[in-house]
Amino acid sequence: MTSEILTIGDELLIGQIINTNQAFIAEQLNLINIRVARMTTVGDEMVEILDAFADAWQHHDIVIVTGGLGPTHDDITKKAVCKFFDTDLVQNQDVRTHVQEFMNRRNRPWSPAAEEQTMVPRKAEVVWNPLGTAPGMLFAEGDKRFIVLPGVPYEMKEMILHSVLPLLVLLVHDSVIRHKTLRTTGIAESDLSAALGDIDQLLQGARLAFLPSPAGVKLRITVFDTDAASADRKVQEVEGRIREKVEKYIYGTGKEELQEALGRLLLERKKTIAVAESCTGGLILQLLTSISGSSAYVDRGAVTYSNRSKTEMLGVSPDLINTHGAVSREVAEAMASGIRQAAGTDIGLSVTGIAGPTGGTPDKPVGLVWVGYADLSCSLAVKHHFAGTRETIRERAAAAAMELVRRKLL
Amino acid sequence: MTSEILTIGDELLIGQIINTNQAFIAEQLNLINIRVARMTTVGDEMVEILDAFADAWQHHDIVIVTGGLGPTHDDITKKAVCKFFDTDLVQNQDVRTHVQEFMNRRNRPWSPAAEEQTMVPRKAEVVWNPLGTAPGMLFAEGDKRFIVLPGVPYEMKEMILHSVLPLLVLLVHDSVIRHKTLRTTGIAESDLSAALGDIDQLLQGARLAFLPSPAGVKLRITVFDTDAASADRKVQEVEGRIREKVEKYIYGTGKEELQEALGRLLLERKKTIAVAESCTGGLILQLLTSISGSSAYVDRGAVTYSNRSKTEMLGVSPDLINTHGAVSREVAEAMASGIRQAAGTDIGLSVTGIAGPTGGTPDKPVGLVWVGYADLSCSLAVKHHFAGTRETIRERAAAAAMELVRRKLL
Repeated sequence: MTSEILTIGDELLIGQIINTNQAFIAEQLNLINIRVARMTTVGDEMVEILDAFADAWQHHDIVIVTGGLGPTHDDITKKAVCKFFDTDLVQNQDVRTHVQEFMNRRNRPWSPAAEEQTMVPRKAEVVWNPLGTAPGMLFAEGDKRFIVLPGVPYEMKEMILHSVLPLLVLLVHDSVIRHKTLRTTGIAESDLSAALGDIDQLLQGARLAFLPSPAGVKLRITVFDTDAASADRKVQEVEGRIREKVEKYIYGTGKEELQEALGRLLLERKKTIAVAESCTGGLILQLLTSISGSSAYVDRGAVTYSNRSKTEMLGVSPDLINTHGAVSREVAEAMASGIRQAAGTDIGLSVTGIAGPTGGTPDKPVGLVWVGYADLSCSLAVKHHFAGTRETIRERAAAAAMELVRRKLL
Repeated sequence: MTSEILTIGDELLIGQIINTNQAFIAEQLNLINIRVARMTTVGDEMVEILDAFADAWQHHDIVIVTGGLGPTHDDITKKAVCKFFDTDLVQNQDVRTHVQEFMNRRNRPWSPAAEEQTMVPRKAEVVWNPLGTAPGMLFAEGDKRFIVLPGVPYEMKEMILHSVLPLLVLLVHDSVIRHKTLRTTGIAESDLSAALGDIDQLLQGARLAFLPSPAGVKLRITVFDTDAASADRKVQEVEGRIREKVEKYIYGTGKEELQEALGRLLLERKKTIAVAESCTGGLILQLLTSISGSSAYVDRGAVTYSNRSKTEMLGVSPDLINTHGAVSREVAEAMASGIRQAAGTDIGLSVTGIAGPTGGTPDKPVGLVWVGYADLSCSLAVKHHFAGTRETIRERAAAAAMELVRRKLL
């Protein structure tokens, strides 16, 4: 069984937007073992759309089309679909009710364009679009499926995840599918893999994807099962076995970022934090304060690029800097203690290092980073060697610093 | 005349990477008036590649293929090309010399994989790849062109911009093409368009694209001409006419970001800066210090989220905050003066505002941002109202703050 993804829109052909829909759908189909054999993009041109439909439908079992379902004159996908399947448009009462409620909630008046959205090809089944007004459409011929979705990414994603995938899993595998993502940080992909041990024993039929980024590795569990409750239970079991082995590296699940997980924990524990950054230059503060409501736990921060600023803002003694250098355990600790005292917060956090590409020495190479931590009862510093560009080193350092605080809070 | 872009690689079909190559090539072809009619992606499978070649070559005049030229076993594009054009591989001495130099510079030993890279289809012309070892290939039949490039984005981009486009422009338009991008900030797209006035008179045959982003609007000038010197002169003339009207909004050209332009100016003028951030939470500092060598002009920064930190770190009087509120002209000015005095820098910069989504009031709505500036001779603050999400408001505020310093330096 193979599939083709067909994206429609002039804006794609002029390179105005990058086709992220395609990659998203491809990833999701692969997760349920449906091979994507081809991805095609054409513009809002009837002949080219019909050619692409014919080609895809002839060669593949599953065709997923996105784009061109909007209410403007250049959105012709619905017309093309009617031609291709030799059918006409009829009004769908459920869709009409949904579109009316949708417009009412937004205080938008009824319009011919809204009316147009309530029309669905007679031969199609509606694929529900909870987040928009353009209904999705499904055509079936034997085991083949032709599915048409709007191109608006968040509408399309919702429909793929909650309508299309369950339907295809049932069709292809006679089963349901469940995912869960566990987010780790502070451990490399290879070490994580080693720590998880025998992968077959761990998964017992489930699937696991390793998704690395500078801030950490995500583990995505996928389970197919004939029964929903059993699938949920299996995901839980796999998660349990993973947590047994690498619990301390897991900071969150799903889409939760490290700064959100840390923020949540700081709120829960009623702790406040202040940050002193050298090589990360404000990145940690920027990440922490990107969360709405972070003013409840972020009191302040200092970006101390010059040695003098480390002394004046954080009270780091010039002697300490002269003796050990600005990038050292001693200075990292003094920076964390210094910002904590100045701010009167529960926690002080600091980073000092060499982000590069220049400024490294044999003793202190590019990528050397000290992360400092201080609270009422202790202060400490942890040494890291990060690889990568200036940007990557800064991202890794920021993640390591936030993770240190998270671990201390637990 | 139409074109098709064909991208090859299993990693695209499993959604592991997003197809940015496609959008880049599409944008470039459109710039020279070559319509992209279709974009197709297939995996590393001989039959599917050959089908896609045949389909594209039958329907379109220009076919651009990327991917699958690497030296590993799953890279089969070169083999497919030989089959398709019924030709064999011969060693190319120029390519061999280039690959040898390339390996030597990197201290990498000669290998069968390197040897493989020096082989080129007999019927193909080589498209030079200065940044990598896989040569590009060009096949011509009458006015039709079939061009094969590596999938590594920076290699491909270099080859498109410096080999493929000039060649196609000559072929299609019997002319050369020149681009120049002027980067503006602090003016909305519609105001910029109004300020430029009569567009035909401004351009006199050249083309102009408006490319907006939260940090500002880029203006891309494109000129076609039969003569290179004349094209260069026309770009210069259009740039001159644009600068006459909106010079003060233009901070740089090409790929230069605002933080780079500001950094360059600070270095030139031998000025140092310190920054106090509230709602931007470290974003300005992070941007300024993302530039290697920024320690020469960034002394320090303070992220003052709490009112107390504004007082303790910047010397802003509690009375001032109580009377005017933390988001006010008075506090913005006092923050800028305060960080400047504490740091002993030439310039102090500050931001205080409401990034949302919560925290707004009728008097001080989400998006209200005061930017403060202080130097030896003056201090001032500028009020802004930014629209958008928390992230966009923070980005716009950071750009406005950096731009204020740039203007004061000029």
